[in-house]
Amino acid sequence: MSVEETIRKMAQSAKKAARKMSVLNSDKKNEALERIAQKLVENASKIKDANEKDLDYGKEKGLSDAMIDRLTVNDAVIESMATGLRDVAALPDPVGGITGMWLRPNGLQVGRVRIPLGVIGMIYEARPNATIDAAGLCLKAGNAVILRGGSEAFHSNTVLGLIIQDALRETDIPEGAAQVIPVRQRDAVNALLVQEDSVDLIIPRGGEGLIRFVVENSKIPILKHYKGVCHIYVDKMCDLGMAEEVSFNAKVQRPGVCNAMETLLVHQSQAESFLPKMAKRFIGAEVELRGCPKTCRILTEAQNATPEDWPMEYLDLILAIKVVSTMDEAIEHIAKYGSAHTESIVTSDYSRARKFLRQVDASVVLVNASTRFNDGGELGLGAEIGISTSKLHAYGPMGLEELTTTKFIVFGDGQIRT
Amino acid sequence: MSVEETIRKMAQSAKKAARKMSVLNSDKKNEALERIAQKLVENASKIKDANEKDLDYGKEKGLSDAMIDRLTVNDAVIESMATGLRDVAALPDPVGGITGMWLRPNGLQVGRVRIPLGVIGMIYEARPNATIDAAGLCLKAGNAVILRGGSEAFHSNTVLGLIIQDALRETDIPEGAAQVIPVRQRDAVNALLVQEDSVDLIIPRGGEGLIRFVVENSKIPILKHYKGVCHIYVDKMCDLGMAEEVSFNAKVQRPGVCNAMETLLVHQSQAESFLPKMAKRFIGAEVELRGCPKTCRILTEAQNATPEDWPMEYLDLILAIKVVSTMDEAIEHIAKYGSAHTESIVTSDYSRARKFLRQVDASVVLVNASTRFNDGGELGLGAEIGISTSKLHAYGPMGLEELTTTKFIVFGDGQIRT
Repeated sequence: MSVEETIRKMAQSAKKAARKMSVLNSDKKNEALERIAQKLVENASKIKDANEKDLDYGKEKGLSDAMIDRLTVNDAVIESMATGLRDVAALPDPVGGITGMWLRPNGLQVGRVRIPLGVIGMIYEARPNATIDAAGLCLKAGNAVILRGGSEAFHSNTVLGLIIQDALRETDIPEGAAQVIPVRQRDAVNALLVQEDSVDLIIPRGGEGLIRFVVENSKIPILKHYKGVCHIYVDKMCDLGMAEEVSFNAKVQRPGVCNAMETLLVHQSQAESFLPKMAKRFIGAEVELRGCPKTCRILTEAQNATPEDWPMEYLDLILAIKVVSTMDEAIEHIAKYGSAHTESIVTSDYSRARKFLRQVDASVVLVNASTRFNDGGELGLGAEIGISTSKLHAYGPMGLEELTTTKFIVFGDGQIRT
Repeated sequence: MSVEETIRKMAQSAKKAARKMSVLNSDKKNEALERIAQKLVENASKIKDANEKDLDYGKEKGLSDAMIDRLTVNDAVIESMATGLRDVAALPDPVGGITGMWLRPNGLQVGRVRIPLGVIGMIYEARPNATIDAAGLCLKAGNAVILRGGSEAFHSNTVLGLIIQDALRETDIPEGAAQVIPVRQRDAVNALLVQEDSVDLIIPRGGEGLIRFVVENSKIPILKHYKGVCHIYVDKMCDLGMAEEVSFNAKVQRPGVCNAMETLLVHQSQAESFLPKMAKRFIGAEVELRGCPKTCRILTEAQNATPEDWPMEYLDLILAIKVVSTMDEAIEHIAKYGSAHTESIVTSDYSRARKFLRQVDASVVLVNASTRFNDGGELGLGAEIGISTSKLHAYGPMGLEELTTTKFIVFGDGQIRT
């Protein structure tokens, strides 16, 4: 069977399974998640053996230590995958919830009820955990999912896929409900992207290259985020101690992730008192500083920023710093260089907080808090399948609810239209 | 300037305008709608003169009477456009509404606030009224809109565009907020579909051909519906008088629209008593009947349906009829041939109503009411910019709220992530 045929068959089987999934009660879905969790632990050595093959291949291919680290599945990782599934099982089922209901003048009762999206194609890189995390969330929200991990994790993902299939079979859920693509070649991705008759949504997670590839080649709707160029703006009136803590956390706590701060904007009235102390702390944490001319006049430790720095997602211990004359200048800078991901202001002024919240267009806008809180778990969604920076369907972290949609239901007594 | 350049400039100007629009208070937006309404009436003769040119061209081109009728703008049409704008002005502004707010264990207060989508590209056919309707809804929801009507309505739409621009200018709203494409060629559509850097959403309204063209050629997210193959299922237990009224209304009241019934499904236990009377009424209204073998045995007036009939959107006084042995057969038929648009059951049985509501996947599912109610106005959304039959972002009629999205807002007191 050709790659195209394999994928088409998988998509059709997912579509069939999705109809069954959409009317399953929570009990049944939770039972499947629990069973996958059990099987992960029972099959730990099988998983680690497969992962060993991926690691050998990865080392041969010269993957960086960080990549090898992300690829590694040990007992702790297996335990955390199982825990993750149980956490998702414990979350409320979004399906069937009525999001509103009203009565029309003619007596029709109209409402909206939450339903699954249908078939979701997940395309992601490196970490094999993503296979289990995504499968758990999609199943809980009543969807069927087709999983396509990175080729580096091929053997690990294949075994995880078999475990999922076993668990589904034993729970009497169609195996089409969660399938790992059993093909290593890139063609499989292209083949998935044209299954618009069966697949309702593609979620790509990974580097900008992967995401652009998916956008260019898909006829299926996509939920994506390209990158996180996140700012903190330290306002004219604010608690400088708070500004320091929040900025330090946003840059240093985990610099390699999309919600880390990349550029610090400082109101000119604060620059002289704030920047030297802040810089000292950053330099102590080995953060490289790149400043605008005003910044460099205050901080001799900073290099001159170039125009390439402002739109840059460093994902590293590097920080761009710009001194602005007004809050409007900060807002303009964010509009020009930000990526609609996460933006934060540190201020003690009521109206300026309100203005920033209203005028800044980003999926998460914060006042007096670290950008690192743009995360489904941290914001209270329970779990997260990704962060959307495009506005259709979902904007910001996506939890179970974002894996559903609503349909209208109408209760009548014979009403006709006149 | 080339077509591509013209469109790119328009898109960029729309993007700039969208930022201003997003923070406008309702008063200002309503003032603009009122001013457009006034100017429509003041400029009635100018509009009718332009429309005359379109009508001459249309007659020359041999447009059908129905098409000419849709294309015609007379005083009544102008009055109804103005009234439509005032109705939209009277609707509550969706922007700024908080859709939920909660407190996290660390004291962060997290919420979601409704914001405009940004720049919307509307591509539609024939009726010049659509220019005003779409502009009104998009502006009220705080978006910028680029309007591209059918080439048959080119002169009418151009004048309507100028009126909108005048009104915006006088209200001190950037003219980029609502622009009619001043180019007649089809190239303009292609050029619009690649402005993914500026345009956030494309809404195509028209025939299946137009919509498929847009889907094939757009990198921008799309809200679309292809067609409405709507069913009514007359259940084993039901009020046959109600079934007759609802079915007649769904087929005959306005057969040329997407929410009209195309296939009637009848439980076999009801067929003998229901179909003869129902058929008599349909035939009295000049409805052509095409039945399955069981139907034709009961109704000698019906022709034999072919396999092409079941997925057909007639948009005409033609009805397919199928007798089913069970409700499951009806649900299967709908899953196979329906278009996820509108499905209705007539039943007096509580559990069967519940089952139909849960198992049938369509944007609107009704019990004991005509399919003709799938309409934003009828369902209480106030107004409608289209009906979506794909599940991302919106499923069903789209009102003002569907022209917005939500962003997260977070209020902290210096919280950092640990």
